[in-house]
Amino acid sequence: MQREGVDAALIIYHRDLLYYAGTAQPCNFLVPAQGEPALFVRRAMAMVKEETWVKRLYDTPSLKPVAELLSEICPAGGKLGVEEDVLPASLYKRIQQTFSKFELVNISPAILKQRAVKEEKEQVKLKETASIFAEAHRAIMENMKPGITEIELAAEVYRNVRRGGAEFINYHRRWDNTSTHEGLIAGSSTSWKISGLAMTVTGVGTGPSMPWGASPEKIRRGDLLVLDIGINYQGYHVDMARTYVAGQASDLQKERFQVIKTIMEEVMAQALPGVTAGSLFSVAAKKAEELGAWEYFQGWGDMKGYYIGHGIGLELDDPPALTKGNEELISAGMCLCIEPKLIVPEWGAIDIEDTVIIKDEGPEILTPVPLHLFEV
Amino acid sequence: MQREGVDAALIIYHRDLLYYAGTAQPCNFLVPAQGEPALFVRRAMAMVKEETWVKRLYDTPSLKPVAELLSEICPAGGKLGVEEDVLPASLYKRIQQTFSKFELVNISPAILKQRAVKEEKEQVKLKETASIFAEAHRAIMENMKPGITEIELAAEVYRNVRRGGAEFINYHRRWDNTSTHEGLIAGSSTSWKISGLAMTVTGVGTGPSMPWGASPEKIRRGDLLVLDIGINYQGYHVDMARTYVAGQASDLQKERFQVIKTIMEEVMAQALPGVTAGSLFSVAAKKAEELGAWEYFQGWGDMKGYYIGHGIGLELDDPPALTKGNEELISAGMCLCIEPKLIVPEWGAIDIEDTVIIKDEGPEILTPVPLHLFEV
Repeated sequence: MQREGVDAALIIYHRDLLYYAGTAQPCNFLVPAQGEPALFVRRAMAMVKEETWVKRLYDTPSLKPVAELLSEICPAGGKLGVEEDVLPASLYKRIQQTFSKFELVNISPAILKQRAVKEEKEQVKLKETASIFAEAHRAIMENMKPGITEIELAAEVYRNVRRGGAEFINYHRRWDNTSTHEGLIAGSSTSWKISGLAMTVTGVGTGPSMPWGASPEKIRRGDLLVLDIGINYQGYHVDMARTYVAGQASDLQKERFQVIKTIMEEVMAQALPGVTAGSLFSVAAKKAEELGAWEYFQGWGDMKGYYIGHGIGLELDDPPALTKGNEELISAGMCLCIEPKLIVPEWGAIDIEDTVIIKDEGPEILTPVPLHLFEV
Repeated sequence: MQREGVDAALIIYHRDLLYYAGTAQPCNFLVPAQGEPALFVRRAMAMVKEETWVKRLYDTPSLKPVAELLSEICPAGGKLGVEEDVLPASLYKRIQQTFSKFELVNISPAILKQRAVKEEKEQVKLKETASIFAEAHRAIMENMKPGITEIELAAEVYRNVRRGGAEFINYHRRWDNTSTHEGLIAGSSTSWKISGLAMTVTGVGTGPSMPWGASPEKIRRGDLLVLDIGINYQGYHVDMARTYVAGQASDLQKERFQVIKTIMEEVMAQALPGVTAGSLFSVAAKKAEELGAWEYFQGWGDMKGYYIGHGIGLELDDPPALTKGNEELISAGMCLCIEPKLIVPEWGAIDIEDTVIIKDEGPEILTPVPLHLFEV
């Protein structure tokens, strides 16, 4: 906190509360740079008491006592860190008024930087989450056949994943993200159509209200099917993708799968502590060019994405973004998703994604399903 | 817009975009009080063109051209309406800087007021959504038995509802709401424990990361089970609940169910255009007292809720809130959820909820499942 130059932080967002206070119940958490943190519980004190390590607890939904305590700690005012990327403007303005002696500064980048490197016990949880992907894979292997719709497959995937223990919700820090929690499930007729969500294989969904994710389109013999799914278990997310063929793969499908698999292997070989996030995209882009696949790599036309993955943890899409030019350094303990894909208009998509933990000796792949083009 | 005293509105939130522009793709929608609206498309122009009625389209993610156009329309500056309850503080500050000649005012209450009264075609969609509740009910009737866990039941409910055509996501305007989209499914051992979410039957979920919704607890013979589920189809939500018994209902279960059913009937009889939102709570509270059920009505102890329901539509929990003292008037065309419940510590909960459209002659109930205590 001193490195960030703030006198205190006010944590309200439930994922950050979970990380710092051990509870996702509605709370206002005041963390002074000096002195004891205080948790102001807005609701469900009995449950909070069972969950949190914080000793100094107050039972009130109001911001006023928080401001009063902070005034005692910092009588001259100062700088107060708040989560500007997620707090709605109306609440932010209320905080400004209530903590009028304090200048508000954005503490979210510092929070996310700290969250990016996973402790040992977090790595254990990430591995537990990843194991559930086997259930999603099984749902496709057991149910995919010509004539089934994307939505019907999505229903089976969800059922398996939920029975496997996953929580229902994947979290995103982006306020306007509305992606499907059951994963993106898209066949050849939809997987090349890129909808507006900040992703590239999106599916087309069910209409204007939900224009991504599974659609009512049927899988046809010979179709490719992409399963790209985020899974959350005990608060920790993984994100994984595999591509399937309904029946026997064609030579072109096999060839394009091999291109993407080669790019994946190339990135994995370079995913080491000390490289920049952007360099992983460069490695992938260079290999795509070498293989003559640049035109369709990570999308096509003006919907192409200049990225090869992202961090992950308490939210599905955390820093660092593995985007072109990003100078952030990769370090040991980071959990990253690597997701090369080919998206070919009128043809379909090959999409594979693995979640890894960065180690000194190279990435440890968590995905429990082999990297094949599965013929179902 | 003139009634709200603003010179223009800038609509960015996807549910409001869907309502006003017909698309939920990422856009900045500028609606001047005088003159033609303009949609600045941040991504997926091809899809937006198929969905929107707006003629004036720009293909740019930037706010700058929006500000330039507004400066042409209102060279002297003025008041700009924005959605302060959902815009994150960081984006709000960027809008403040970019539209520096304009004072920002909160347009969300006006938007929600307009959205509260449903047009005929919206009512048709709401009825289509409501019909899917029959699938959720069927999942419970076919799968509930002693030994099954809440999560296993949730998986079956979700599977049926999704196959019934529902979108995967229920929308909430509350930034920190994380409720389960598959509904709250809670047996006798969990339904009386009230977690921190702004509801009363919450379930206890799977742990600190997800402390509401279905849990790994098993249903025992004689248990009550609550299914309280929001369903979204084509963007329109309904919210409904029924209570089930694993086996034969006891006399006490039947008696308490009758209390809640009587309160429901009493509220329905009063749900007419012209009454206040708060009066519907008063009617329910008075009846609960008469029946000697006040102690457990809408929760117990300091977790009791002073409400009897809420509006619904493009989001699961819209105004008007049917809360104690709310002076907002109910009008014809509003879509409301009425949800009386008894929550008894160490015993369980009776929870029923119907979604209705307010008509001059009384509420039209959309829920396609009779109001019984189902013995399964």
